[in-house]
Amino acid sequence: MDWPNFDIRAAANSAGIFKQNSKKSQGETNIPKDVLENLYGKDARECPRLNDGFIPVLSKSRPFDLIELEQLLQSVGWSQRPFQRVKRALSNSLLTVGLWKHDSRFPLLIGFARCTGDGVLEATIWDVAVSPIHQGSGLGKEIMKYILESLRDLGIERVTLFADPEVVDFYRSQGWTLEPKGHKCAFWYAN
Amino acid sequence: MDWPNFDIRAAANSAGIFKQNSKKSQGETNIPKDVLENLYGKDARECPRLNDGFIPVLSKSRPFDLIELEQLLQSVGWSQRPFQRVKRALSNSLLTVGLWKHDSRFPLLIGFARCTGDGVLEATIWDVAVSPIHQGSGLGKEIMKYILESLRDLGIERVTLFADPEVVDFYRSQGWTLEPKGHKCAFWYAN
Repeated sequence: MDWPNFDIRAAANSAGIFKQNSKKSQGETNIPKDVLENLYGKDARECPRLNDGFIPVLSKSRPFDLIELEQLLQSVGWSQRPFQRVKRALSNSLLTVGLWKHDSRFPLLIGFARCTGDGVLEATIWDVAVSPIHQGSGLGKEIMKYILESLRDLGIERVTLFADPEVVDFYRSQGWTLEPKGHKCAFWYAN
Repeated sequence: MDWPNFDIRAAANSAGIFKQNSKKSQGETNIPKDVLENLYGKDARECPRLNDGFIPVLSKSRPFDLIELEQLLQSVGWSQRPFQRVKRALSNSLLTVGLWKHDSRFPLLIGFARCTGDGVLEATIWDVAVSPIHQGSGLGKEIMKYILESLRDLGIERVTLFADPEVVDFYRSQGWTLEPKGHKCAFWYAN
């Protein structure tokens, strides 16, 4: 398979200098390109600096620490799963996206999402999560934009997801079509 | 990846003898095991003989002729797609299932379905199709049973699909949960 994968290792140790105090206007970047690429991979994207001063960075190649990922997912109320299963599920995903609170030495994982799919016709988005203390800052929207652009680059025809009732408006406001042509979602549980 | 794949080649040319005229009671099989495996792969399943005499066989490893597959999909009203894209989509699917009208030399494709997913936590079923002239014989149900058993063998936790309005009752009657906990399905189209 030739699609982006969380296993692509960013050379995180050769991070370089983080110009945290440089003043830049909105829309400009704060992290030097080489630092961004070394820490987060070549397709990483710096998001606008938030009010409390930190810079969020989106990456589809920086590897996850599974303990950190589990802590994030549990903080949004998801159930614990065996590490080995999670590892395999991530490795078999079409795309895994991390949202990081930038730090030149220890970036902190504050958001996540992943897709499964055939890499051509269909992709389905799962497990969109933003750490509760960072919710309401537009970060969920940044994750979704980044995913859709990545999937568009792959030439995917259609992207789907199953929306919890409380986030239906979130997706609707971003142009998603809910239940097109009367489609219903159907679930079947193994247990 | 170590999951079943349509590229696994069944040694179709070494088919052997097909005992079409042997009389057997319902529930017994008509196709000798070695013939079944050679033609359709080792996980193939013979379905009960239909009224018009033919035997349907399910397989997740017999390769598809893309022209035959396209003819089937167009017969149920789906749009034509470039072969190369279809080929890649099939190759990247978690599971592809063919339903064949058994013939010891030229099995005919009369049904199809496929899944995408991470092979561990999630699988999503797409493109369930039965040739119009064979609909209403319970073959769709056989395909779904075969898929769910295959996914259960992989240890998948949850299987999902998007049901067209006209097949909502079909899935409901087979134990699928529609829109659990108020979930809505959301679609985003590239074009």
